[in-house]
Amino acid sequence: MEKKRIYMDYSATTPVKKEVVDEMLPYFSEGFGNASSFYDYGHEAKAALEKARERVASLINAEPAEVFFTAGGSESDNWAIKGAAFELQRKGKGNHIITSKIEHHAVLHTCEYLEKNFGFEVTYLDVDEDGKVNPEDVRKAIKDNTILITIMFANNEIGTIEPIEEIAKVAKENKILFHTDAVQAAGNIPIDVKAMGIDMMSMSSHKIYGPKGIGALYIRKGVKIDNLVHGGAQEKRRRAGTENIPAIVGYGKAAELAKENLENHISELTRKRNRLIEGILEKVPYTKINGSLEDRLPGNVNFSFEFIEGEGILLLLNHFGISASSGSACTSGSLDPSHVLLSIGLPHEIAHGSLRLTVGDFTTDEDIEYIIETLPGIIERLRSMSPLYEAAMNK
Amino acid sequence: MEKKRIYMDYSATTPVKKEVVDEMLPYFSEGFGNASSFYDYGHEAKAALEKARERVASLINAEPAEVFFTAGGSESDNWAIKGAAFELQRKGKGNHIITSKIEHHAVLHTCEYLEKNFGFEVTYLDVDEDGKVNPEDVRKAIKDNTILITIMFANNEIGTIEPIEEIAKVAKENKILFHTDAVQAAGNIPIDVKAMGIDMMSMSSHKIYGPKGIGALYIRKGVKIDNLVHGGAQEKRRRAGTENIPAIVGYGKAAELAKENLENHISELTRKRNRLIEGILEKVPYTKINGSLEDRLPGNVNFSFEFIEGEGILLLLNHFGISASSGSACTSGSLDPSHVLLSIGLPHEIAHGSLRLTVGDFTTDEDIEYIIETLPGIIERLRSMSPLYEAAMNK
Ligand SMILES: Cc1ncc(COP(=O)(O)O)c(C=O)c1O
Ligand SMILES: Cc1ncc(COP(=O)(O)O)c(C=O)c1O
Repeated sequence: MEKKRIYMDYSATTPVKKEVVDEMLPYFSEGFGNASSFYDYGHEAKAALEKARERVASLINAEPAEVFFTAGGSESDNWAIKGAAFELQRKGKGNHIITSKIEHHAVLHTCEYLEKNFGFEVTYLDVDEDGKVNPEDVRKAIKDNTILITIMFANNEIGTIEPIEEIAKVAKENKILFHTDAVQAAGNIPIDVKAMGIDMMSMSSHKIYGPKGIGALYIRKGVKIDNLVHGGAQEKRRRAGTENIPAIVGYGKAAELAKENLENHISELTRKRNRLIEGILEKVPYTKINGSLEDRLPGNVNFSFEFIEGEGILLLLNHFGISASSGSACTSGSLDPSHVLLSIGLPHEIAHGSLRLTVGDFTTDEDIEYIIETLPGIIERLRSMSPLYEAAMNK
Repeated sequence: MEKKRIYMDYSATTPVKKEVVDEMLPYFSEGFGNASSFYDYGHEAKAALEKARERVASLINAEPAEVFFTAGGSESDNWAIKGAAFELQRKGKGNHIITSKIEHHAVLHTCEYLEKNFGFEVTYLDVDEDGKVNPEDVRKAIKDNTILITIMFANNEIGTIEPIEEIAKVAKENKILFHTDAVQAAGNIPIDVKAMGIDMMSMSSHKIYGPKGIGALYIRKGVKIDNLVHGGAQEKRRRAGTENIPAIVGYGKAAELAKENLENHISELTRKRNRLIEGILEKVPYTKINGSLEDRLPGNVNFSFEFIEGEGILLLLNHFGISASSGSACTSGSLDPSHVLLSIGLPHEIAHGSLRLTVGDFTTDEDIEYIIETLPGIIERLRSMSPLYEAAMNK
C-alpha cells in the first residue's frame, strides 16, 4: 500500500498548479529568448514578461511599472530594506529603522546586518499576545532620524494579519517610507497597495502555487532606493540579470488564478482551518491556539501542546503521512524555540511544543478529518513518555 | 510557409535541453517540498538539491560544499564583489579593487557602486587589442590596500579567454582574494578551480542549456565574505531564500551534460565558428574579426563591418530569420557603442558596425551555410545606403 501523504505545510511552499506549469512549459525550450534582445525570440519573451507583470500588478492594485521581479521573497526584503537604508543614509535623512520582533528572518537578519556593520539603529517593536503590532507603538518609536518602517503584512508562523493600513498611515503622517513583507499575504488575502498607502511590498510566487525562485518587489512610483543586484539594464535598470521568463510567466498565471479564486480560496480555507482547530481543541487538553483568531491568514493553524516537543510531533505526523512544521526554528538546525512564539509571550517550554499546520487549495475535508483522528493519539503518546506531563498530572 | 528561424545568440541565453526539462518536471507539482523541512517531501527535495550541487561542483573540480546556488550570474558577481569588499574593508584590510575595462556590467556597475558610495577605490585595467588582460599589469596595479582582484574568465562579446591561471597566481603571491566571472566559460571550456587557484567564481545555468533564474558562486573553503541576501538558513546560512529545487535540479543536469559533452561541444562549435568566420571574411570586404583567434570561446564570432550600424544588420538578419546580437549596448536602450569594443581600440564608428553571432549545440552546418549566403547581401545593401561607404569609395 502506498504511504498516505497529506501536505499541511502550504505556508512553507506550495505545489505549482497544473495550469501554471502548462503556461510555463513553452518558455523553456521554444520561447526561450532573452527578453532584452532585438529579434523575434526576444520580442516574444518581452511580451510574455509584460503580460505577467500586469497580472501580478493587478493582484495588488498596482501599476505594472511599479512591479519589479526578483528571485523571491528574501531578495525582495533585502532589496527594499538595504536599498532604502543606503539611499536615505547617504542623503543625510537619518539612520533609524523601525520593525517588529516577529518579522521573518529575511527582514530581521537584514536589519541586524545594517545595525552591526553600517551604523544603522533599529527598533524592534514588541507585539501583543496575538502577535499584533500596535500602530501607536510605531508612532511612539518614530524619531527625527527614522527613515524606514518595515512591518510584515501577515506572520508566517501564527498567521496574524497586522493592521497595515493604520501603520502605513502613521508612516505617511510622519513622511517616513513604509515597507511591508507580504510574502504570506499577497494572493491569500485582498491587498490594495494604493488604498492602503504602501510604499514597498515584498512578494513570492511559490507561496501561491507558482514556481520557486521568483518573486517581486512593489515599489511605488517615485520611491527611490539603491539597487541590490547591479549589472544589466533589466527591470528598468533596477534589478540586473537575464529575465527568468518561464518563472515570471508562471508567477503571472499564479497571480491571475489567485485573484480569480480569492473569495472562494478564503472561505474554503477558513472553513477547513476552523474545523481543524475546533476538532483538535475538543479532543486534546492542555492545548493553546497561537495567533489572532479574528485577523488570521485563512489557512493557518498553530497549536501549542503543553509538556511535549514539536520535533517529536513532526516525526510521528510524518510517520502517519502528514507533513507539517514546528514553531521551532528547525530549519536553522538550532533547537531554540521560535522568536515569534517567544515574542507573543509563550514560555520556552510551551513554545517548544508548537505545531503549525497550514491548509491549502488541495486540502480536502477528508484530510482534515484524518488529522483530527490521528493527531490526538500522537499527542497522547508523546505525553505518556513525558516526565513533564507526569509531574504535572501528579501535582 | 513558416518563417525560418536560426538562433545565433547562444551567449545571450540558450534553450533548455529536453533532458534537462525532463529532470525538472517532477519537482514542480509532486516533489515540490521545501528542502529545509522535516518531512518526506522535504527530504526528497534536499536529496535532489545535494545531487545537483555535486554535479555542478564536478564540472569545475570543486567540492560540493564550495558551491552555493544563487539566482544567476549577476547575483553571483554582486555577492562575490560586495561580499568580499564589505568584509575586508570592515576588517581593515583595505579598500582597493582591481578589475578590467571589459568586464560584464554585473561586475563593472557593482564596482562603480562601491566606489561611488562606500569609499572603495577601483582600478580598471586596460586590455590589449585582442581583449586580453596582461597579468603583469595586474601585478603592477597591486597596492598595499588591494583586497580583491576580479577578472572575467572569458568575455561575453568578443569571446576572448583571459590568462586566468597566471592572474590567479599573481593574486596568490600577493595574498589577495581572486574572483572570476565565468558565466560564459563554465560549461563551455574546461575549468579546474583547484588547479587554477581560483578563490571565487560566478556561473549561470541558462548559458549552458539549463534553466534561467539559477546560477552559482563557487567560494573556496575558508574564504569569508558578507552575505548579499540575508534571512533563512539555506545554503549553509550564506544565501537565504527557499531553495529553487526544479531550477537547481535542471542546472545540475545541464552541468552534467556539459561535462560529458565538453570535448565534442568544443570541437563542433569551433569547427562551425571557424567556417562562419572564414566564409564571411572571404565574401565581405572591410571586415574585421574582433577578439583573440587563439584563446577564444568555441562558439563566439564577432565581426566589425565598416561603414554601417549594428542595429541595421540585426533588423535585416531578423527579417531573414536569424537571431543575433550587436556589439552595441542595445539592451540598455542607449546607442553608445560597447565598452568592450572601445576598450580593444575600435574607433566609435567601427564599434557601431559590430555583430555577434554565437554558435551553439543546436546550430547545424546548414545554418552556417545559410548565414554565409545571407549576411553578405545584407551588408552590401546597408553599405549601398551608407553615405560613409559612398564617401570612402569615392576617395
Ligand atoms: C560574462 C557575464 N557575466 C554575467 C552575466 C550575467 O548573468 P545573468 O544574466 O545570468 O545574471 C552574463 C550574462 O548576461 C555574462 O555574459
Ligand atoms: C513572511 C515571509 N517573508 C519572507 C519569506 C522568504 O521568501 P522566499 O523563501 O521566497 O525567499 C518567507 C518564506 O519563507 C516568509 O514567510
